[in-house]
Amino acid sequence: MTYTVAVAGCTGYAGGEVLRLLLQHQDVEIGALTGNSSVGDSLGLHQPHLAPLADRPVVATTAENLAGHDVVFLALPHGASAAIAEQLGEDTLVVDAGADFRLQDPALWEKFYGSPHAGTWPYGLPELPGQRDRLRGSKRIAVPGCYPTTATLAMLPAVSKGLVDAAQISVVAASGTSGAGKAPKTNLMGAEVMGNASAYGVGGVHRHTPEIIQNLSLVTDETVNVSFTPLLVPMSRGILATCSAPVAKGVDTALARAAYAAFFADEPFVDLLPEGVWPQTASVLGSNRTTIQVVVDLAAGRLIAIAALDNLTKGTAGGAIQSMNIALGLPEATGLSTVGVAP
Amino acid sequence: MTYTVAVAGCTGYAGGEVLRLLLQHQDVEIGALTGNSSVGDSLGLHQPHLAPLADRPVVATTAENLAGHDVVFLALPHGASAAIAEQLGEDTLVVDAGADFRLQDPALWEKFYGSPHAGTWPYGLPELPGQRDRLRGSKRIAVPGCYPTTATLAMLPAVSKGLVDAAQISVVAASGTSGAGKAPKTNLMGAEVMGNASAYGVGGVHRHTPEIIQNLSLVTDETVNVSFTPLLVPMSRGILATCSAPVAKGVDTALARAAYAAFFADEPFVDLLPEGVWPQTASVLGSNRTTIQVVVDLAAGRLIAIAALDNLTKGTAGGAIQSMNIALGLPEATGLSTVGVAP
Amino acid sequence: MTYTVAVAGCTGYAGGEVLRLLLQHQDVEIGALTGNSSVGDSLGLHQPHLAPLADRPVVATTAENLAGHDVVFLALPHGASAAIAEQLGEDTLVVDAGADFRLQDPALWEKFYGSPHAGTWPYGLPELPGQRDRLRGSKRIAVPGCYPTTATLAMLPAVSKGLVDAAQISVVAASGTSGAGKAPKTNLMGAEVMGNASAYGVGGVHRHTPEIIQNLSLVTDETVNVSFTPLLVPMSRGILATCSAPVAKGVDTALARAAYAAFFADEPFVDLLPEGVWPQTASVLGSNRTTIQVVVDLAAGRLIAIAALDNLTKGTAGGAIQSMNIALGLPEATGLSTVGVAP
Amino acid sequence: MTYTVAVAGCTGYAGGEVLRLLLQHQDVEIGALTGNSSVGDSLGLHQPHLAPLADRPVVATTAENLAGHDVVFLALPHGASAAIAEQLGEDTLVVDAGADFRLQDPALWEKFYGSPHAGTWPYGLPELPGQRDRLRGSKRIAVPGCYPTTATLAMLPAVSKGLVDAAQISVVAASGTSGAGKAPKTNLMGAEVMGNASAYGVGGVHRHTPEIIQNLSLVTDETVNVSFTPLLVPMSRGILATCSAPVAKGVDTALARAAYAAFFADEPFVDLLPEGVWPQTASVLGSNRTTIQVVVDLAAGRLIAIAALDNLTKGTAGGAIQSMNIALGLPEATGLSTVGVAP
Repeated sequence: MTYTVAVAGCTGYAGGEVLRLLLQHQDVEIGALTGNSSVGDSLGLHQPHLAPLADRPVVATTAENLAGHDVVFLALPHGASAAIAEQLGEDTLVVDAGADFRLQDPALWEKFYGSPHAGTWPYGLPELPGQRDRLRGSKRIAVPGCYPTTATLAMLPAVSKGLVDAAQISVVAASGTSGAGKAPKTNLMGAEVMGNASAYGVGGVHRHTPEIIQNLSLVTDETVNVSFTPLLVPMSRGILATCSAPVAKGVDTALARAAYAAFFADEPFVDLLPEGVWPQTASVLGSNRTTIQVVVDLAAGRLIAIAALDNLTKGTAGGAIQSMNIALGLPEATGLSTVGVAP
Repeated sequence: MTYTVAVAGCTGYAGGEVLRLLLQHQDVEIGALTGNSSVGDSLGLHQPHLAPLADRPVVATTAENLAGHDVVFLALPHGASAAIAEQLGEDTLVVDAGADFRLQDPALWEKFYGSPHAGTWPYGLPELPGQRDRLRGSKRIAVPGCYPTTATLAMLPAVSKGLVDAAQISVVAASGTSGAGKAPKTNLMGAEVMGNASAYGVGGVHRHTPEIIQNLSLVTDETVNVSFTPLLVPMSRGILATCSAPVAKGVDTALARAAYAAFFADEPFVDLLPEGVWPQTASVLGSNRTTIQVVVDLAAGRLIAIAALDNLTKGTAGGAIQSMNIALGLPEATGLSTVGVAP
Repeated sequence: MTYTVAVAGCTGYAGGEVLRLLLQHQDVEIGALTGNSSVGDSLGLHQPHLAPLADRPVVATTAENLAGHDVVFLALPHGASAAIAEQLGEDTLVVDAGADFRLQDPALWEKFYGSPHAGTWPYGLPELPGQRDRLRGSKRIAVPGCYPTTATLAMLPAVSKGLVDAAQISVVAASGTSGAGKAPKTNLMGAEVMGNASAYGVGGVHRHTPEIIQNLSLVTDETVNVSFTPLLVPMSRGILATCSAPVAKGVDTALARAAYAAFFADEPFVDLLPEGVWPQTASVLGSNRTTIQVVVDLAAGRLIAIAALDNLTKGTAGGAIQSMNIALGLPEATGLSTVGVAP
Repeated sequence: MTYTVAVAGCTGYAGGEVLRLLLQHQDVEIGALTGNSSVGDSLGLHQPHLAPLADRPVVATTAENLAGHDVVFLALPHGASAAIAEQLGEDTLVVDAGADFRLQDPALWEKFYGSPHAGTWPYGLPELPGQRDRLRGSKRIAVPGCYPTTATLAMLPAVSKGLVDAAQISVVAASGTSGAGKAPKTNLMGAEVMGNASAYGVGGVHRHTPEIIQNLSLVTDETVNVSFTPLLVPMSRGILATCSAPVAKGVDTALARAAYAAFFADEPFVDLLPEGVWPQTASVLGSNRTTIQVVVDLAAGRLIAIAALDNLTKGTAGGAIQSMNIALGLPEATGLSTVGVAP
């Protein structure tokens, strides 16, 4: 069976990556491509790398244009998904790459996003324990944020196995600038970001903070606190997250590695690297793979777990398609690759 | 008075930056330029940006060639400085950009560097309390490592004022690749590092770890532990260090900012940024300035201090010249700038 | 039928890209992976992006190890291919990514490469008129150089249709640094190439010059001269070639575009872009696609054709697999994509 | 004597670079800093690298605010300079970094800029024969475009000495993205330009084309035609221009080098590199230096001259200050450096 798929927000980075991956997916047919200010343009003007779709017209993001597809991907600004989603039939699989339906706690949503909470959808991180069951057959999926996917995967084994004090987690994550979106801003201009590493959203104010805490709280009864610092570094794609916390007594590197290896043993898209090898974003560029390494620094009394992924692929569009595959009952890896484009 | 200055290791990155800054220094005359495999070449072949020195010949790194100068900068591989230094007269100011004389504890030296300890010289970080007095008139200076300068400046006020639990400090520092030196290695090739963020030396094994601990221990009686994670990001220059630790009771952002402002009030090369503005390496490129921001995340119970500097300037050659100025009794800022080259 | 394929030189950039593409090719099975200094290592140490091959051992580059495969790719230093090739059976398809068998004129070979000429193999540029017939069933293929592929595709319609004075062609081609290979050299270090555009091999001395001339001479009876200037620019992959020549009387942009459109009408991997849209390397990253634009500047009396491709894909490994497909009688696009990885 | 200097357009790249250089200039005092949408901000918000000016307020770009200074730099959008300039007194030295007063031919101005011609001011390229005399004492200076400065310097000796056929000049110039200004645009975003080389304004339509022709026509009676192709490459600063033309009979590399050496012998900011060494932009970053190399390719019948400079320094603000120094009767190199910031 072939599924028809529409993409709302086809001219941005998330929408473009969804389309790039769908072009490799044997079970889908790409339908309506919708946008806003670009309506009437050919897609090739906005996504010149998607050669097979170059002549496709961009149509308006309306329920009418999106209707009649088996799957609709929403890659829209925050706050725009709910209105569209409720106009789409309950039989349509709606996959939201935005934040609107990620958080369970309305108060946290309102605190961090400053608008009324739209609701909560099944969360598209299959590596969370039990999550595949929740995604199977689901008609609504909230795609995780790119930082939360990285940090959650890095700390999930440590927190779930009690290897660390979850109340004192620190996450410092360096991201490529595509994570900030395609809308032009002075601080994201090439001349500003090349040769430049910078911090932003420091001190617990970044919107991805409660999402990381929500994820890790699923696997422990202990309190979870996360100090999250995002950095921008001069590359287009990739996130490298350095996560650490005070290590529990008796836990050393060997024990931590064994726990991580066991946790991810059956995961198709998460690899614990060989001892002594550290993650790098270039190795996973364009792939749906996350690479992880963990070590215990006994002198500092800290477990350090580092994860690398492509923010647009596993961090957004690849994760979205992985969850779509599960929801539709397809093999989970369909259309996805563990092979990066390097150097 | 004009001081004659020789530079040993003139073809590398540290030596080149020392020369770049000396060319702006009104009180020095550049003398012998020494190297190893490059002997006989014109400097212009190795440092094409130093136009005024293009025709200077590179001579061998021998005590004979270095003798007769008022100041000798050593920018040599680890372990090579001691033999040269002891052949230079006690009247010569020797400034070592290498690691050989930084650590006070021979056991720590041997653990991290794997060779016998050569000794300890006055440490060239003027911002350490009381350090200017130790540098004034000194004939030997050990230039700090680039990461230790960054992390020490970021955490010095917090540790000295008891704002944090010094036993649980975490440092994640992203560096440009010039910090790894000019000797060709596959993992430092342009095609490997562009588009790539990677971790290395994780888990307490990086040689700069004991140096950071040594520095911060100078200003507290408490135990200092540091979990240090260095990252390589795709830029030539710059270090952005994200430092954090559990915050002491009653300390909030306002209090932390006041403490930092007071601590650095008289420092010519360290600036606490206005509230809400975060450090970025591009702003300090080529300058001797360090920019710092601090915030307390009460929800996470953590103080986060972030510092940015140019690893080759304030992190190496600029810091070296700042200390040289103090040792020689010159105005501390001679030849140094707080103006970065951006964008 | 499944073809077994060996790759000699599996740890370099060309070998790695051949493997990345073979992993997407449904009709091949990857066999022996051979190297030199890396023998005994797992491939994952050298090509961390090729997850499915991470545990494959690197074995020695010997005829014994390469024997018994249907196809052998050689990604070896110049001069090393002939000795290996003659030990492989005549039934083995040998695809040489090196230069050894590209040039037809022994004198030119010796002038530019300084060694005896090894011979000439069918040239793996299917877009040359009549070339697919020469490749079909061939057991030996010489993969073109990356610059010659780019410049040839850019100027082939203009020269073959007599739109320009072929005796006065100028080619200025900006390349990512992976084109210079993986062997560590100071001038290719990340800190040297980031933020830097440089020229090299100027004035007719670059080895790809006679290869471009050889290609264009196939489609004209006129003299072909090419002034070729290669540039290094700060990116890992990609070539952007700006090619120009005095335009023939009566030729304007519309006529030139029509000629180019007709020439490439049936080519699966070459696209003339819509008028007003100019090639960029990011759009073809990781793909086998070449994008071209052509314009006539009547005031300057010059036709300018610009082409962009990925030097490792269409410029090396992708072109090699395209030719392999033709030689084996497979659909030409098997395992190859026109979709780039962007942004 | 100290000159007071105002900068109109202080928040952009050109204005920022003017200020960076003025901070090193011993004979000036920085006065009013004017902007548009940024009025009321501290300069530090927009130019965080200019530490000594961080607290200076941005005031409105009005004649009132600019009046009363000895020198006024205009770094404004095209078309905005004339209205301001005519309100400034005839005793004020007005240096326009924009294009408004560069071209002599009103018809060419209107063709390329689409607006009425504002007039012609003395052109701030001191290296043009006789130009220093025209600049001395002048109260109005039109700063050249960054591409015209690069291409003109590269070809000036060749054209003036008749070494080439000036009717067939080709210029392909790769630029960092700061040359496109600081106004946010999608195609200049970091994620778009990193890893990407692209062409734009091809075919004789770029506005700098007539300016290059105007300059080169000053030194020859022959017709000058220029095919100009600008490229964007992934770096913040720098232009590398590859210029070529059919070489005159009897001219070889030695002769060309001798002519270039003689032409630039007394120039403080233009260096012919040693034979075999090619220009690279990193070597001149932040400096006012232009490096040039020239070679004759006898096989192709072409002279190739390559020049590198920093588009913001020698290409804009440094060139402006060099001309200001001449106009004011100061030593030409005051406040300017030939030392680049590298690596």
